[in-house]
Amino acid sequence: MAWVLTLAATAPARADEGMWPLDKVPVDKIKAAYGVTLDQAWLDAAQAAAIRLSDGCSGGIVSPEGLVATNNHCVAECAQGLAGPGRDYVRDGFLTNARDEELKCAGLQAEALLSIIEVTDQVRAAAAGKTGEEFSRARDAAMALAEVAACGGEAGLRCQAISFFRGGQYKVYKYRRYADVRLVFAPEQAASAFGGDPDNFNFPRHGFDVAFLRLYVDGRPAATPRFLKWREHAPTDGEVSFIVGNPGSTDRQLTVAQLETQRDLTLPFGQLQRAELRGRLTQFSTESGERARLIAPALASIENSYKAIQGRQKALNDKDFMAAKQAAETALRARIAADPKWSVEVGDAWDRIARAQVAALDLFAPVRQLETGAGGGSDLFYLARLLVRAAQERDKANADRLPEYVDTRLPMIERRVLDTQPDEPTVEQIYLEQWLLKTRELLTVDAPQVRVMLGRESPAALAEKLAHSRVGDPAFRKALWQGGIEAIEDSNDPLVQLVRRTDHGARVARAAWEKTVSGPVDTAAEKIARARFALLGDTDYPDATFTLRLSYGKVAGWRERDGLVAPFTTFGGLYDRATGAAPFAVAPRWLKARAKLNPDTVFDFVTSNDIIGGNSGSPVLDAAGEVMGVAFDGNIHSLGGAYGYDGARNRAISVSAVAVSEALAKVYGRNALLRELTGP
Amino acid sequence: MAWVLTLAATAPARADEGMWPLDKVPVDKIKAAYGVTLDQAWLDAAQAAAIRLSDGCSGGIVSPEGLVATNNHCVAECAQGLAGPGRDYVRDGFLTNARDEELKCAGLQAEALLSIIEVTDQVRAAAAGKTGEEFSRARDAAMALAEVAACGGEAGLRCQAISFFRGGQYKVYKYRRYADVRLVFAPEQAASAFGGDPDNFNFPRHGFDVAFLRLYVDGRPAATPRFLKWREHAPTDGEVSFIVGNPGSTDRQLTVAQLETQRDLTLPFGQLQRAELRGRLTQFSTESGERARLIAPALASIENSYKAIQGRQKALNDKDFMAAKQAAETALRARIAADPKWSVEVGDAWDRIARAQVAALDLFAPVRQLETGAGGGSDLFYLARLLVRAAQERDKANADRLPEYVDTRLPMIERRVLDTQPDEPTVEQIYLEQWLLKTRELLTVDAPQVRVMLGRESPAALAEKLAHSRVGDPAFRKALWQGGIEAIEDSNDPLVQLVRRTDHGARVARAAWEKTVSGPVDTAAEKIARARFALLGDTDYPDATFTLRLSYGKVAGWRERDGLVAPFTTFGGLYDRATGAAPFAVAPRWLKARAKLNPDTVFDFVTSNDIIGGNSGSPVLDAAGEVMGVAFDGNIHSLGGAYGYDGARNRAISVSAVAVSEALAKVYGRNALLRELTGP
Repeated sequence: MAWVLTLAATAPARADEGMWPLDKVPVDKIKAAYGVTLDQAWLDAAQAAAIRLSDGCSGGIVSPEGLVATNNHCVAECAQGLAGPGRDYVRDGFLTNARDEELKCAGLQAEALLSIIEVTDQVRAAAAGKTGEEFSRARDAAMALAEVAACGGEAGLRCQAISFFRGGQYKVYKYRRYADVRLVFAPEQAASAFGGDPDNFNFPRHGFDVAFLRLYVDGRPAATPRFLKWREHAPTDGEVSFIVGNPGSTDRQLTVAQLETQRDLTLPFGQLQRAELRGRLTQFSTESGERARLIAPALASIENSYKAIQGRQKALNDKDFMAAKQAAETALRARIAADPKWSVEVGDAWDRIARAQVAALDLFAPVRQLETGAGGGSDLFYLARLLVRAAQERDKANADRLPEYVDTRLPMIERRVLDTQPDEPTVEQIYLEQWLLKTRELLTVDAPQVRVMLGRESPAALAEKLAHSRVGDPAFRKALWQGGIEAIEDSNDPLVQLVRRTDHGARVARAAWEKTVSGPVDTAAEKIARARFALLGDTDYPDATFTLRLSYGKVAGWRERDGLVAPFTTFGGLYDRATGAAPFAVAPRWLKARAKLNPDTVFDFVTSNDIIGGNSGSPVLDAAGEVMGVAFDGNIHSLGGAYGYDGARNRAISVSAVAVSEALAKVYGRNALLRELTGP
Repeated sequence: MAWVLTLAATAPARADEGMWPLDKVPVDKIKAAYGVTLDQAWLDAAQAAAIRLSDGCSGGIVSPEGLVATNNHCVAECAQGLAGPGRDYVRDGFLTNARDEELKCAGLQAEALLSIIEVTDQVRAAAAGKTGEEFSRARDAAMALAEVAACGGEAGLRCQAISFFRGGQYKVYKYRRYADVRLVFAPEQAASAFGGDPDNFNFPRHGFDVAFLRLYVDGRPAATPRFLKWREHAPTDGEVSFIVGNPGSTDRQLTVAQLETQRDLTLPFGQLQRAELRGRLTQFSTESGERARLIAPALASIENSYKAIQGRQKALNDKDFMAAKQAAETALRARIAADPKWSVEVGDAWDRIARAQVAALDLFAPVRQLETGAGGGSDLFYLARLLVRAAQERDKANADRLPEYVDTRLPMIERRVLDTQPDEPTVEQIYLEQWLLKTRELLTVDAPQVRVMLGRESPAALAEKLAHSRVGDPAFRKALWQGGIEAIEDSNDPLVQLVRRTDHGARVARAAWEKTVSGPVDTAAEKIARARFALLGDTDYPDATFTLRLSYGKVAGWRERDGLVAPFTTFGGLYDRATGAAPFAVAPRWLKARAKLNPDTVFDFVTSNDIIGGNSGSPVLDAAGEVMGVAFDGNIHSLGGAYGYDGARNRAISVSAVAVSEALAKVYGRNALLRELTGP
């Protein structure tokens, strides 16, 4: 029933709800709730030290020499990339003793937010009076112009125009960009991911999911005089907590009709395929230790997304939650209907969205299997499609291309084509076969697109050929990229040919979807968003957009079916929970250090902050702005946060700063790093 | 929208809806719709030739010498059991030339319905004034008494008391039982299951899913003077069709609250586990041809149930369908509320059912993982639990036992314990590991039942031990059965120990479910059913109960998203559809016979008859009572038939009698069998 209290459209966000942009933090509300005043200096300090990582994570600067605290799962790809024969940094950890041992993470970039620039009026003005595709183009052009205007040509900056409230507001976020980010400290996976999939999104938790990076400029550690102080005492029950980071995406402003589509169609559709693929990968991994190692990242990723989607599904299946959403929608509609201007402007927007959902019933399976989810996760397919489509689209004028292939995007696509490293063929083959099997099942054998796809071959036999495509060879890809459409059309590679012969069906499915579902929905949603914004004022927070936000809350357990869940775990609890069998086997270094560690040290803790994926690695700050921990997960109820915040149960999970300090000293012996964090 | 027309509670069943008991066939309605009068002689002839098979299928007697037509998928287990070194009857078919080549199917029994005896009054009288457990016991005792009274001690008879309309009516079905059933003809699986999983529940279809059994009495073919005539001309579009068989189970009388529980909780819960297990089995089968052969039956079974559940889920996700169910419920409630007697009698039955659904949210996962779905499909677990529980329960008085272990059931349990043949350990291990993994995931690591289950072992390590349990050895099982509780308690077998240590948690979960969910629901549902029956009269058909029913309809295609689906396929279509790759590879015999076959012969066809699982093997009769085909499947829309019949799209799929005749002559050269069917 907690939902009912927090979701009414006309009520302000309650309790600890909200992912607040840094230029509209509700300081009065926070003061009223917690007696803490966040003055501009506090907010500026938090913003100056907040980091956005290009792999979809967050972090916080914690020393004057560019040291950044984040999660180990945020640097796993970096650690894996640095590994080589005889060096498995994911399994063993990556521990440096001196600056010259810090190694660059290939492709990882960091950004620090400098300022937020309001550009709503100019974007609106450019698009005024236009509709449909013309509207989109004018808006996009105005946003691009605003980015250029804000950043000028200055090196080391990045400007990004963002649409908030689905078109209700436009702002440019201006960042300082760090292109040289190096790995300083990453613990062994057995410590950071202790509990594995069973403990993921659960609490009590005993994960040492912390890692340190360092920002470099001109080959030297960046000077970062504005950094966050690492706190030396444990979080306490009920203490106020602030999390500053970049929540990736939420869907809190969808209509009830759209939520029902997610509940009944899109989430189950994807989840059933995910479950079956997970079963295949699990079985594959049981065949040998080498296979288990090979498949581990793919399996962990699918387990994580499986659980995340289960959490979202659970929220949507909650009748109270949906009733609250319905009540909020009804209230907003009434409010708009009562307004002479906006009732005309919005018109039948909700009904148009609802009608699009009916169309989605038939159009979703083709667009999912042939276009948005084509290849079923195969990197090879992804690369082959980029090659084929880029060659096709480059021959067209910019205005006629698929938007992801316009000139300004081509350099990024080229980099992806040349740099992406596909999986082993055995793994690629599983993804491809599974995709072919399910596409045949879901669209039926008699669908023309399926006949074109399979010809007279079985999914298994075709997938085996595709998995050995030469697209796996970077030189082959380079030749195709440079050869353009002629090279593509001449190629006898089975995967290139598959992509070519299925491309027409995929484009048709996509066009049908955009024309009948996503196009009408976007247009209608923007009308609603603008009305909402105009009528309710700028006091609400927008859906997450992987931009910097502050959330507030407190250290607090919650009530679960069978009792209260305490807000803390301790080092002692780690050893109690261990069984010796993975994923509940304590890492050797931690076994050895057991006697030295204080069993009562707070290890992980939960807070009521409203965060979501993308917030991984965010610093958790106290009233004084000191780092009390690093956020790395949410509990199972936080997953419903995609659609709405339930203050009674939604919890963020963090590793405490004191646990990090004690482990650096007693488990890892990283005294230089510890001194950099806490001072001499 | 077709749903809206067929489901109103107070309207009679419309169009071709209904699975009608033979003692209440709506002959007037049939005459009005099709101009055909089914007189008593017609009905008696159909009943006399209808067969119920103990493996959950139906059949029809088609010669005076006990020949029974059914489906090949209904005799697959028999054919597999008859196989031996160098003889694979499933792959190659089982073809006899003479009576002495016909072989007994181990464990398969056939029953022919002799009469239906009304016993409602005496059952009601026995239970009158009683409530709760006392009510159930009195009712069950009266039903058992009615069975004994109807059959006496006569050998070769079986009497079964059935509750129709969830307690609205009680009848005894009296059968002649045939304990000696022999296999006469079974085609190769490549012919009967052409199209495999992709074509399953779909049409156009080209399955030769027919087989013949023979009833034996005293070692000789049974004399069956009342048999169905095998028709020698093809079905025609629009022709009336009657299907006589035993639909297994439907849920058309569930309340909307119960349907929502199936939609949102129980179906997805099972289906996600099924998908993941399917992925494991699929991957396992790719490792080698021998593994593929080993796993084929398990994989086919899981693919079939996966698709069946998808069809049910689709019906429940259909907003029009649920709205029609809601309208019907509202109408019935209004009707009852307007009746002075029944409004008091029924009281708040719907609300009590709805409250039980809320309780189910928390109670379902434990009861599913620990009790009803424990073992995850492992035969070894099933056997070990039978052994442990039978030993525990035999030490109690009958009245204190779990109902499935009362004295009258023990002989059947003993036979199962001694006769069941578990899967290979490698397959058992997959089932067991998957069950342990999912139980840990769904109940969480911290659930006491999970701690008891796993101890300090990983699911993988524990499953490996369990899969090599000695419970796989019949002699070991026999010793444990005879040794009783002491032998069980002394056993150090890992699986027996697992069952013992998890038994308490399983019983607690079951008791909680029965007390809070199924018990209150059953009591309330019976009240509603009796009111419905009393107020609407005996003009409706009851939910399916695996008893003999007649359904009527016509040969008819249907409208699918992208056009009309024609009602027939032909022999020619088989060869057009073939790709050469399984499951679309034509069987060698059929390839060889191609030139001899008439490409225009009607192969499979669809009719609007209202049937469901259990009807497999049912004869499809024309107006004259002649066999025009054998039903073997339904289309994808028929799966929603579990909850309601949609005459516009729900179709039964049958193989035509003419196709069978022609193939027996030209593909299989079984001329004696053909002569027995069609005369000299």
